Amino acid sequence: MSRTAVVAGVGPGLGASIARKFAREGCDVALLARTEPYVEALATELEATAGSGVPIPADVTDPGEVEAAFERVHDELGPVDVLVNHASGGSWKGLLELDVDEFESAMAVGPRGGFLCARAAVPDMLEGDGGTVIFTGATSAVRGRGGALGFSAAKFAVRGMAESMARELGPDGVHVAHVVIDGQIRPPDADVDDPDAYLDPDAIAESYWHLVEQDRSSWTLELDLRPHVESF
Amino acid sequence: MSRTAVVAGVGPGLGASIARKFAREGCDVALLARTEPYVEALATELEATAGSGVPIPADVTDPGEVEAAFERVHDELGPVDVLVNHASGGSWKGLLELDVDEFESAMAVGPRGGFLCARAAVPDMLEGDGGTVIFTGATSAVRGRGGALGFSAAKFAVRGMAESMARELGPDGVHVAHVVIDGQIRPPDADVDDPDAYLDPDAIAESYWHLVEQDRSSWTLELDLRPHVESF
Amino acid sequence: MSRTAVVAGVGPGLGASIARKFAREGCDVALLARTEPYVEALATELEATAGSGVPIPADVTDPGEVEAAFERVHDELGPVDVLVNHASGGSWKGLLELDVDEFESAMAVGPRGGFLCARAAVPDMLEGDGGTVIFTGATSAVRGRGGALGFSAAKFAVRGMAESMARELGPDGVHVAHVVIDGQIRPPDADVDDPDAYLDPDAIAESYWHLVEQDRSSWTLELDLRPHVESF
Amino acid sequence: MSRTAVVAGVGPGLGASIARKFAREGCDVALLARTEPYVEALATELEATAGSGVPIPADVTDPGEVEAAFERVHDELGPVDVLVNHASGGSWKGLLELDVDEFESAMAVGPRGGFLCARAAVPDMLEGDGGTVIFTGATSAVRGRGGALGFSAAKFAVRGMAESMARELGPDGVHVAHVVIDGQIRPPDADVDDPDAYLDPDAIAESYWHLVEQDRSSWTLELDLRPHVESF
Repeated sequence: MSRTAVVAGVGPGLGASIARKFAREGCDVALLARTEPYVEALATELEATAGSGVPIPADVTDPGEVEAAFERVHDELGPVDVLVNHASGGSWKGLLELDVDEFESAMAVGPRGGFLCARAAVPDMLEGDGGTVIFTGATSAVRGRGGALGFSAAKFAVRGMAESMARELGPDGVHVAHVVIDGQIRPPDADVDDPDAYLDPDAIAESYWHLVEQDRSSWTLELDLRPHVESF
Repeated sequence: MSRTAVVAGVGPGLGASIARKFAREGCDVALLARTEPYVEALATELEATAGSGVPIPADVTDPGEVEAAFERVHDELGPVDVLVNHASGGSWKGLLELDVDEFESAMAVGPRGGFLCARAAVPDMLEGDGGTVIFTGATSAVRGRGGALGFSAAKFAVRGMAESMARELGPDGVHVAHVVIDGQIRPPDADVDDPDAYLDPDAIAESYWHLVEQDRSSWTLELDLRPHVESF
Repeated sequence: MSRTAVVAGVGPGLGASIARKFAREGCDVALLARTEPYVEALATELEATAGSGVPIPADVTDPGEVEAAFERVHDELGPVDVLVNHASGGSWKGLLELDVDEFESAMAVGPRGGFLCARAAVPDMLEGDGGTVIFTGATSAVRGRGGALGFSAAKFAVRGMAESMARELGPDGVHVAHVVIDGQIRPPDADVDDPDAYLDPDAIAESYWHLVEQDRSSWTLELDLRPHVESF
Repeated sequence: MSRTAVVAGVGPGLGASIARKFAREGCDVALLARTEPYVEALATELEATAGSGVPIPADVTDPGEVEAAFERVHDELGPVDVLVNHASGGSWKGLLELDVDEFESAMAVGPRGGFLCARAAVPDMLEGDGGTVIFTGATSAVRGRGGALGFSAAKFAVRGMAESMARELGPDGVHVAHVVIDGQIRPPDADVDDPDAYLDPDAIAESYWHLVEQDRSSWTLELDLRPHVESF
């Protein structure tokens, strides 16, 4: 079965690895991000896969842009089967340094962006045979980090939203999952001193795909991922 | 020692019980809420206590109003020792019913309001002998509720913010705590069929005061409170 | 009201601080531990309080000794109102160093000892006006520690037992609580370089007493305690 | 690569599904359980797979039997690469009904059995290229169940042990994971009214295998599994 997948907040690194994995598995992947040249280059790269990539430049924090983006997805690829809410943001500042705009910005990218994309994609899943919504989380989604107030608040909010959606939508066939990335992801094209200290984004993407493939009798709400050498 | 306390989002019910308890213990309590007649009436009631109450009408979601409110607190009561972030909101709707404005509103009251009040109050504590910041949480802060997406996201966000602040500010003498209220609070002046099924707001206020009184060698980040008959 | 309290696994440090606090509040405190001279000396010390202390030498891991000990408590002090399961043990070794006897020993002290004492004390509470059972936990009760396998397994087991008992017994008026001590407790009579780095056992005892005093409309299942400077 | 896997506590249901999946993937699977006829029949069934099954009758709670069983595994299949600690037990009784033997029995099957098998298997993994240890958990491993005291204590203990082992052994290449099965597993050969209400054991086994296949840069410590219609 060919699936239509949306990776919202795709960028070099984990977002691209997810898009590549899903396209290799035959998905047509809508690549949502603000940076038009990047999503166009990635779409070109995905032509070599069993699936395809379609660049959809859009700001996930803007209700109008998200609506327009999902209209394009519908027109070009049909109803959405899989949504990965991958956008994340927020400067790492504590209470005393963070200003209101920075706080608002952190809350807009992850929580509001995730909400807007889910609201646009889930009706397709409910009308069809169900679907999958995956949220990318972080350690700061389960343990608030000192000195990263906006980031922690936003990551917690996304996790709470994912749990709420999982309980609302599971019985109707929509699998909502939250992945806790606990550690540093290996930067693309970078020489790193100790490769073992990083999560390999291609390896993470395998677990995302496993979540998509899970039978509805045995769905996972949350899993954590970390390098084998990580202290935690 | 007489303390200056701010109860942000005070209203009939738990907020009023906290204000009464703190005033009975000798605190001068700034009563922050949008409803001017309510906070004025509560302030009058608190004249009979060892402490006092000062009505400060303000919308905690508005940066300018919060700033002005804390200036009034400083002018009338001096530096803040204790802040209770009690404001909470958010309609209980799921993904398919919630609109963007309702989502934004939920995120404004708890997370942004809590952030704004903490930013205004904590510098006083750091300049003085430390202080206490308590966030009122709910079951939906630790377990996202299906059909209450905005509420769950907001309550999780507040918890993440509290954890982040606790780690940032604890070493400098500011005790940040998060209270998980797990159950229904007995409504004021209401006849209820089964009083045992509700949390008594005066009893909850005793635990808030215990958090204020804890020695800095043994601080609690989080405690839960529920009626003894509650299923959980 | 004068209460009968049992502190099981009392010793110098936190156990003694709990016994002292409870006796100061008027409790008659049964002091259960293996070391007879210690509990006798502590009992003598408690003569100066509003309550009293009764030495009950016993090994909490031995079903027969626990039964006999609680018979003595009944005979000398009457029905039990409060039980503190404070005994804890287990060498800090990982999988590769720990032998079966050490594993069994860890599981005997905390989990089996706690079970035996609760089984002996709770019927009194159910026949009377309810009561309180507090388990002393540790960080390793919520986060398994590498290199402390038996200790982690035992601390988790105690927490699971406490949660199960809380749900079983709460509706019948028995308050079961679990306290997570996160950090080092200041050793008695020791000069320490940095007193701020330790939990003060007398301060911890205040929170134990708060749990005993909580109104049944607003009970806490779990709270954590740590020094304000602790990294966590 | 052909792997040697041990499923400890295998029986009809999930244990058998795990053994079948692993054998289909080419593993030689040692089938540890007390019931000799059962493991022999299952081994015969696995002859049709790419791997194989070897019946190893043994009581996992008995240190001597576990030692002998793993000697047989070594002799017949070579060093162990994968261990699934699947044995579980414990009557569902509360504090007031559970006797000491029942409590001890619950603690023997899951915690002690898991400890004994891990101690026997992990040295092989450390001498080789690493390996995987998976513990089967349940809802009662993360939320103590009222009326199931021994079961809750045992399931918590196993989870604490798994976390401790994960932190101890991860850096040396041994992946330790804990799976929370949240719901009823479909009974083998049973007609059930509502198949959707159960976890399919074959579907669960897919997630166990995913854990075995995860790259060491991105290991999962814990995942939950439940039917899509489950209330949780």
